[in-house]
Amino acid sequence: MCSKRYKMTLAYDGASYIGWQIQPKGASVQGEIQKVLSRILQEEITITGSGRTDKGVHARGQVAHFECAKTIEISELKTSLNALLPNTIRVNTLDLASTDFHARYSASGKIYHYHIHLGEVSDPFLSPYSLHIRPPLNLKAMQGATHVLIGTHDFCSFANHGSDTKDTIRTIKRIDIFTYGKNIRVEFEGDGFLYKMVRNLMGALLDVGTGDLTREEIKAILRAKDRRCAPKSAPAHALFLSEVLYL
Amino acid sequence: MCSKRYKMTLAYDGASYIGWQIQPKGASVQGEIQKVLSRILQEEITITGSGRTDKGVHARGQVAHFECAKTIEISELKTSLNALLPNTIRVNTLDLASTDFHARYSASGKIYHYHIHLGEVSDPFLSPYSLHIRPPLNLKAMQGATHVLIGTHDFCSFANHGSDTKDTIRTIKRIDIFTYGKNIRVEFEGDGFLYKMVRNLMGALLDVGTGDLTREEIKAILRAKDRRCAPKSAPAHALFLSEVLYL
Repeated sequence: MCSKRYKMTLAYDGASYIGWQIQPKGASVQGEIQKVLSRILQEEITITGSGRTDKGVHARGQVAHFECAKTIEISELKTSLNALLPNTIRVNTLDLASTDFHARYSASGKIYHYHIHLGEVSDPFLSPYSLHIRPPLNLKAMQGATHVLIGTHDFCSFANHGSDTKDTIRTIKRIDIFTYGKNIRVEFEGDGFLYKMVRNLMGALLDVGTGDLTREEIKAILRAKDRRCAPKSAPAHALFLSEVLYL
Repeated sequence: MCSKRYKMTLAYDGASYIGWQIQPKGASVQGEIQKVLSRILQEEITITGSGRTDKGVHARGQVAHFECAKTIEISELKTSLNALLPNTIRVNTLDLASTDFHARYSASGKIYHYHIHLGEVSDPFLSPYSLHIRPPLNLKAMQGATHVLIGTHDFCSFANHGSDTKDTIRTIKRIDIFTYGKNIRVEFEGDGFLYKMVRNLMGALLDVGTGDLTREEIKAILRAKDRRCAPKSAPAHALFLSEVLYL
């Protein structure tokens, strides 16, 4: 019997997991979903994500695919999945995909959001999902520094060891900083991001915001193409994989 | 030496606590704050809240007062408190109050917010603070039923046993339903609320929204003045004590 391919869009709270990918120890998002899917479909199912998310990183729009030879009633399967998965993982959409759809290789880009709460006192309800920073933070300088990063560059300096790729050239389409009240959302859109790249870029931009780094120094770090130059990563708990783009 | 009185405005995530009030077992909000205050001020401090919040109920604007004979550098004490308290409890303001200020008896009213997320699938990031309901929910019928409740009534039917008050007459100034996207916020403002009254009112309004109860039936429950008529409580985790009002 010919297998069919299915595409899922997922949201998850990364705080409860060791990350997307299955590891020898600890609960992973991929592992939890595979366990429940395999149980419902009564066969060993492997899911392929658009990419890993690190320990503590959240997702609003992670995409994964899997294959199954059985006839699936899609709406029923989605309901069963959400009934059996922990409520920190949700399947928002489940659809039949073309057989050549691949969650990782078909992706044309990704959008990440980084959340910052600027306040004298932290907010207990934002703390799990937002980085608390005491003012001031020079947003104008941060926005200025984004222009050094936007475009096609070798982002080697902003990647941590651990990537399985040797090609460190990526294109960042936009880095936008939105403010709403005391909250800031930094949106990163690119064709792809290296291991810990968004958190390293965000760490550098925060250093610009606090006055510890200049736009010119960011340019120098980028040009150095040296992983040892990678600035301090921004914390994982405020980062969201917002959307995976497909053409 | 004459004691001075201080007023605090507090925010806390109720999920981590057995409620506001100190109990023989378990961590309470009052207990955590008293422990840290007593440690900093090197004397036994008792704080008095505007009222209890139940297990799981959150606060954005709980108010408490305490007395201390020592000279206090207010801004420094606030910083120390926030440094030593768990980050699920925050002191947002700390001010010298008049000696006749009483967090409970000086209060002229309270505002509670109840959060509902209306969606086919729940949202992992809203779930800790919002009640997930699958559509439809008849908001127009709910808003209509609020008019039966607004005003001065004997709310005996909407109070659970456990209140320390015999006077069950209260005035509800407004119940407003705001929608923003898939989210709903129900605001309750009144001169005071009986034990579990907001959750019981919300439970009744939700029954109206799902069509299980009519506006006339709510009126009948109110008139019955019988605690056994109290409808099913709405869950605690979506309720916030938003503000305590003082004249």
